[in-house]
Amino acid sequence: MSAKAQMSFNTITAKDLSLQEILTSCSNSGVSHIAPWRDLIARNGVEQSAKMIKDSGVAITSLCRGGMFTGETSQIREAAIQDNFRAIDEAVAIGAPVLVLVCGPQIGKDLYGSQQMVIDGIAEILDYAKSANILLGIEPLHPMMAASRSCITTVRQALDIADLIDSPSIQIVIDAYHVWSDPHLPESTDRIKGRVAGFHISDWVTPITNELGSRAMPGEGCIDLERLKTWVLNAGYHGPIEVEVLSDFWWSQNPLKTFQKAVDSFSKLNWGS
Amino acid sequence: MSAKAQMSFNTITAKDLSLQEILTSCSNSGVSHIAPWRDLIARNGVEQSAKMIKDSGVAITSLCRGGMFTGETSQIREAAIQDNFRAIDEAVAIGAPVLVLVCGPQIGKDLYGSQQMVIDGIAEILDYAKSANILLGIEPLHPMMAASRSCITTVRQALDIADLIDSPSIQIVIDAYHVWSDPHLPESTDRIKGRVAGFHISDWVTPITNELGSRAMPGEGCIDLERLKTWVLNAGYHGPIEVEVLSDFWWSQNPLKTFQKAVDSFSKLNWGS
Repeated sequence: MSAKAQMSFNTITAKDLSLQEILTSCSNSGVSHIAPWRDLIARNGVEQSAKMIKDSGVAITSLCRGGMFTGETSQIREAAIQDNFRAIDEAVAIGAPVLVLVCGPQIGKDLYGSQQMVIDGIAEILDYAKSANILLGIEPLHPMMAASRSCITTVRQALDIADLIDSPSIQIVIDAYHVWSDPHLPESTDRIKGRVAGFHISDWVTPITNELGSRAMPGEGCIDLERLKTWVLNAGYHGPIEVEVLSDFWWSQNPLKTFQKAVDSFSKLNWGS
Repeated sequence: MSAKAQMSFNTITAKDLSLQEILTSCSNSGVSHIAPWRDLIARNGVEQSAKMIKDSGVAITSLCRGGMFTGETSQIREAAIQDNFRAIDEAVAIGAPVLVLVCGPQIGKDLYGSQQMVIDGIAEILDYAKSANILLGIEPLHPMMAASRSCITTVRQALDIADLIDSPSIQIVIDAYHVWSDPHLPESTDRIKGRVAGFHISDWVTPITNELGSRAMPGEGCIDLERLKTWVLNAGYHGPIEVEVLSDFWWSQNPLKTFQKAVDSFSKLNWGS
């Protein structure tokens, strides 16, 4: 991070805005980066989206998302691999250096079998990502999502998988919402050095109303974002910080208001100089 | 466990039943044990409850709960200590060998400071528990409860705390709902031997609707209860298994129906011989 931490706006935060509305809002607000979700890119098509992004001067931190490697059948898992190839192509097209991997939920009752599907899946897309010069960022999700989105739920588990695959193309994405309460995070301090591909922030408030949409704007909850930011900086990550707030509340508001709230929340964190 | 796993009915599962209704239902259904919550014991008073339990012939696995050691002020934390003393007295009175510790949520944004409050709190009640011959069972809760009920969220963290305090009066309570998705559980296999004070089961279904009341009856979700049971058995725990289902759905049903459903669900797990 240079003098002032840079913000990247993760587009899911205001999911009803069009890509053009987001790019224009970013330009008007001095937000230098975005992290788009693939469904947003699909709305205008990849080629047109890539042109809009290039014309806007807004840069990309990551594309959300690849992964979802777990599945009941080999057909489902093979379809996921093909979809990851397309996601890598899209990342290249829009200039995203990182493809975020949401690795897929536990299948049936088999935690470790599902984890193996993730390892196998990443191994299958590794060469393709490498030749495309796209980093694969394993994002451990909160354990409450183990049955719905990702059986990879701790930083250490993500590092273990990355070690197994053993390639500089595999890194880790740290999302404060997913890992803030993990008491064992400090033990990964040395291991994660040079391996952070992104840093996402939002905040934790109670009560939880569902796995996905219970987040708050950064600064409004109980996450010690300063501690996590320091940890990520010490790991050598100096890129923009993604504000990614999946929130039923903020989705129900005027999306331009939600955009502005995200920008204001980030500014108020006062992560300066 | 002898020929057939024994069930203990955790009273929160059918919280609208009176203690007498639960004891009678257990006797009628061949359920040998219960695990009462303190508010249920309070309804008839401790002395009368103890007499009812004794007269019923139903035994107690644990009293739920002590703990809640974290607090904004020293006054709040001291009040919690006093309440834990009363909980230990109640455990003695009703013949509960174990007091379950739900250790208390993170205070403010300070995970490790809150953890220290837990360590300090347990240390303060240790001698009292020891002289009363009551085991203190640290129950790690699911990470989604870190801000609402317990900043102790992994078995390993609970073992670390137990090691620090270093007393045979401190053991660990394993609740399948809280620890099922922890990929690092196997690494605690050796450490936890001889240290399990209880085993609770329910099941995980999605979507989560809140931190507390989203559970399903054992067998109806995605938890590999067989794997966890084997793990707990290998750790040397051969006591009754508590069915503890905090469920908005089952709380909304006729509580006698809910009781019967819990008994039936346990029986269907077919944990025989």
